Amino acid sequence: MDQPKEKVPYSLNSKKVADATKHWLQKRGVTIDEIAELVMMLQRKYYPNLTMEECVHNVEQVLSKREVQNAVLTGIQLDILAEQELLIPELQDMISNDEGLYGVDEILAFSIVNVYGSIGFTNYGYVDKLKPGVLDRLNDKSLGPCNTFLDDIVGAVAASASSRIAHRKQAEREVEIGEDVADGDK
Amino acid sequence: MDQPKEKVPYSLNSKKVADATKHWLQKRGVTIDEIAELVMMLQRKYYPNLTMEECVHNVEQVLSKREVQNAVLTGIQLDILAEQELLIPELQDMISNDEGLYGVDEILAFSIVNVYGSIGFTNYGYVDKLKPGVLDRLNDKSLGPCNTFLDDIVGAVAASASSRIAHRKQAEREVEIGEDVADGDK
Amino acid sequence: MDQPKEKVPYSLNSKKVADATKHWLQKRGVTIDEIAELVMMLQRKYYPNLTMEECVHNVEQVLSKREVQNAVLTGIQLDILAEQELLIPELQDMISNDEGLYGVDEILAFSIVNVYGSIGFTNYGYVDKLKPGVLDRLNDKSLGPCNTFLDDIVGAVAASASSRIAHRKQAEREVEIGEDVADGDK
Amino acid sequence: MDQPKEKVPYSLNSKKVADATKHWLQKRGVTIDEIAELVMMLQRKYYPNLTMEECVHNVEQVLSKREVQNAVLTGIQLDILAEQELLIPELQDMISNDEGLYGVDEILAFSIVNVYGSIGFTNYGYVDKLKPGVLDRLNDKSLGPCNTFLDDIVGAVAASASSRIAHRKQAEREVEIGEDVADGDK
Repeated sequence: MDQPKEKVPYSLNSKKVADATKHWLQKRGVTIDEIAELVMMLQRKYYPNLTMEECVHNVEQVLSKREVQNAVLTGIQLDILAEQELLIPELQDMISNDEGLYGVDEILAFSIVNVYGSIGFTNYGYVDKLKPGVLDRLNDKSLGPCNTFLDDIVGAVAASASSRIAHRKQAEREVEIGEDVADGDK
Repeated sequence: MDQPKEKVPYSLNSKKVADATKHWLQKRGVTIDEIAELVMMLQRKYYPNLTMEECVHNVEQVLSKREVQNAVLTGIQLDILAEQELLIPELQDMISNDEGLYGVDEILAFSIVNVYGSIGFTNYGYVDKLKPGVLDRLNDKSLGPCNTFLDDIVGAVAASASSRIAHRKQAEREVEIGEDVADGDK
Repeated sequence: MDQPKEKVPYSLNSKKVADATKHWLQKRGVTIDEIAELVMMLQRKYYPNLTMEECVHNVEQVLSKREVQNAVLTGIQLDILAEQELLIPELQDMISNDEGLYGVDEILAFSIVNVYGSIGFTNYGYVDKLKPGVLDRLNDKSLGPCNTFLDDIVGAVAASASSRIAHRKQAEREVEIGEDVADGDK
Repeated sequence: MDQPKEKVPYSLNSKKVADATKHWLQKRGVTIDEIAELVMMLQRKYYPNLTMEECVHNVEQVLSKREVQNAVLTGIQLDILAEQELLIPELQDMISNDEGLYGVDEILAFSIVNVYGSIGFTNYGYVDKLKPGVLDRLNDKSLGPCNTFLDDIVGAVAASASSRIAHRKQAEREVEIGEDVADGDK
């Protein structure tokens, strides 16, 4: 092209980043419904009337936060590059083998959980240890793809959606019992 | 009393917690306007048209988040108890002297900054080091009250409001240039 | 007294802070051995030869870090003041009822886990959810004392000791297989 | 090759990871001395007798921690891949333009600072905002290389070394004044 690239100044396009986040989660084999099922598993004992629809909605809201999108895209990117063996050898070894002393995957996961506050930490640690549902599949090293970052990220999105539900349910409950509800946590 | 206390089961009242947060900030001598001035100082070079009204609004929104309210109330509480000399002696010494190796004040501050993502960290560290405006007064040990927690908390609220503005301004800009804006960061 | 208090300038005494940490853990009914048992439970599947002696040693090393001491003392202090009903009413309610949307206890716990890096997060979330051993007793609301902070803190110390063991075991293994071991993680 | 790759099981080699960290910092144009100069700038007002030798030593100790090595290698890796334009387009845009709303660089930086506790946060925010010395050069977008992650990482290593010095100096002071020093913070 005649026009040099520099002529079009960079400008963040939020919709593109949001769309890419959904696209890459799907491309790496994770559906919103599977994440919503983790949320249901974590929350149904506290809210017996919780519906899958609500779980899906809360997962989507978590995924609409830019901090979450940044972590999801960066983590999936590192998984892909590990598969392509394009990383610095020492990093390649640690990521492709999901080395226990490499904790950057958990650091990215925590940047997701943090957005909805500290009450999500426990849920994250719990699903990350038990690896129910989709997490078990993502963590299965025999299946080919490198999901060192993705399994932690999916657990963190589920934990965050659980925190979001806890905040909302409290607000709903206060409305029902006729309290003058504060404007917070919206 | 005839009626035992247990008869009225505990139920979180969000409005009361929100109101207490505002009440105690004011009682400890910090106005919303002073925090908004810190925000203006941090952000005006990036957004020359930023108004004090916007800064005040963003500070209020930050203060409406429950995670923020929890940190503000807990921090102010520890300052007050240090003034009243009601703490375990070793803790009393560290808090009333704002001991450099005691970092729980900064930990609470970070739980505030985290809510609006990692882009607030830099602003927090900057105001906490330079101590402009209200922070200088809060940090003045000769004035009597113990503000070991409060100065960090006020800096964190200002840094969070700055992050919030950065997220909103980007969304506004994308609307103006006619981009189809994503739904995130709301 | 004739001599005014100001004559003895404040000077942090690390030993006193360390001793107070051990003293208050014990006074609140938690022994080092009980924390070591949590560590054993978390780590024995990875290191079948792990001894209780090693677990105790690692818990003691974690408790010798000042960041950990600060969090332990501050958390226990808030539990005690909640028992004495000396807190701001809204905070009193949240802490004495271990309100789910109050997350400062988890924030203090995370400041402990952070010292040994992100690999401790998962262990923390896991024990905090399952509440094995001592955590079950601490979390029993019917027993009287308020342990809103203490149960999270004890879980965090156990998770940190587990991380510490993981780092050390790797170093030992590398020595055994004759690798020229790096000097890190000391 | 006849021998399948699986025959050599993965085994973390700590020395290799440590060496790679130093190698890549140097390759990206950052010397230990430059980081030590940042430390000196941050700490000399508190410790007038602080020597460059001590600063260098403390930077080296920070770089010997595995959590730090993981963050340094991962950050530099993402900078390199951004230069090579090998990233997912949306991530490519954000990293190569050091987008203000992309905060993963700061998240990695914080995983470094965390290792020495919360007292490093303020120093990190301060140098990250003022960009003295080497940080100014790293942040100069006109010079070619992409240092979106590296400038935050270098600031974080300097802030951590400053925290480490603060902890050690306190221990030294307590020895001098004849106190029975606790064993912590070693």
